[in-house]
Amino acid sequence: MQFYSFWRSLASFRVRIALNLKGLSPDVIDVNLMQGQQREEAFRKVNPQMLLPALLDGDGPPLFQSLAIIEYLDETHPQPRLLPAEPRARTRARALALIVAADAHPLIVPRVRDYLEHELKLDEAQRTRWIHHWLGEALNALEANLSTSSDTGRYAQGDAITIADICIVSHATGANFFKLDLAPYPTVRRIVETCMQNDAFARAHPLKQPGAPQSV
Amino acid sequence: MQFYSFWRSLASFRVRIALNLKGLSPDVIDVNLMQGQQREEAFRKVNPQMLLPALLDGDGPPLFQSLAIIEYLDETHPQPRLLPAEPRARTRARALALIVAADAHPLIVPRVRDYLEHELKLDEAQRTRWIHHWLGEALNALEANLSTSSDTGRYAQGDAITIADICIVSHATGANFFKLDLAPYPTVRRIVETCMQNDAFARAHPLKQPGAPQSV
Repeated sequence: MQFYSFWRSLASFRVRIALNLKGLSPDVIDVNLMQGQQREEAFRKVNPQMLLPALLDGDGPPLFQSLAIIEYLDETHPQPRLLPAEPRARTRARALALIVAADAHPLIVPRVRDYLEHELKLDEAQRTRWIHHWLGEALNALEANLSTSSDTGRYAQGDAITIADICIVSHATGANFFKLDLAPYPTVRRIVETCMQNDAFARAHPLKQPGAPQSV
Repeated sequence: MQFYSFWRSLASFRVRIALNLKGLSPDVIDVNLMQGQQREEAFRKVNPQMLLPALLDGDGPPLFQSLAIIEYLDETHPQPRLLPAEPRARTRARALALIVAADAHPLIVPRVRDYLEHELKLDEAQRTRWIHHWLGEALNALEANLSTSSDTGRYAQGDAITIADICIVSHATGANFFKLDLAPYPTVRRIVETCMQNDAFARAHPLKQPGAPQSV
């Protein structure tokens, strides 16, 4: 297995958590987003969309999109499972994951921040407001759901780790990168803190990866 | 079953196609996005995130996020299946779906268009450029994958309809709404045309829904 990733990529972070939880240790190939290596020929051959992460497993074509890769890992390495067995519980775990991975994260990735800066000529304060706004919208949605649903347990969906927790942790880490206070979101924060006590999450943290700075 | 939707919502369109393919006819509850009904108390009780679609099935809490709902429908009503049986094929179908539903569509939904207009004070030409840019990025990614992969068949993944086709059709329909020419994307266009010959897709089209105008 070859895992194309970068320390700062939150979508790569999600897949790294899943790999750790499954006990998998692929070769890691660094694609430096800050140097634009995702746009270079070598990586375009792997993923023409020029987005991280990508995973090679055996002879098949590269797998891409973090949620699709996590579902693949769960189907091919079923233990420990990252989706509950019961259909409604699976649906809620997936929906919570999508609040992060579909509704929020795509709005703050490098290519969007580049467009805001270079096409729309927004200044840094306007760009930070944009990022905080969409991070906050997802945090509001997560907190509203998690704090009121009887399905919330030790983790986001019940008492076992699911794909929802993986996404919530990546989102909270993004909020930290952009200095957004998580205090108004106590249920989110409790779940993140619980997850980060797990070595599979802790080892996957962006700042623990080769090439990462000590802080952002 | 109760299906909260709106004719113009592309995420609702995706779920409507899946419901039609499964032969399901839920009660439809209209939430008029143009009148802001998604922000009214009645719908906030259903989905505090104030986003369409939502699905009620029996006594459980509302289901939300279009891709999670489609997976739920596929798990609870397995025929015809909307995800292939083989793990790699499932992963590719999900990844193509996510290029639309995660990387592109969240960037052009009403709440983002409102932010561009009212917070960033962009004029109509700038907003249209934004929309065309992100629609185009996804179309480039889809076309690059679909036109080169040996897994592409009559449909996006092989010769049977999957969740990928549902998302690609919703994306092409969004492109039409915003007057973006699909000519540079012949494989996307072929698949969309093939899908639209299927009554489950044709009946689900936004402009065929109650309250829709004759054109946009």
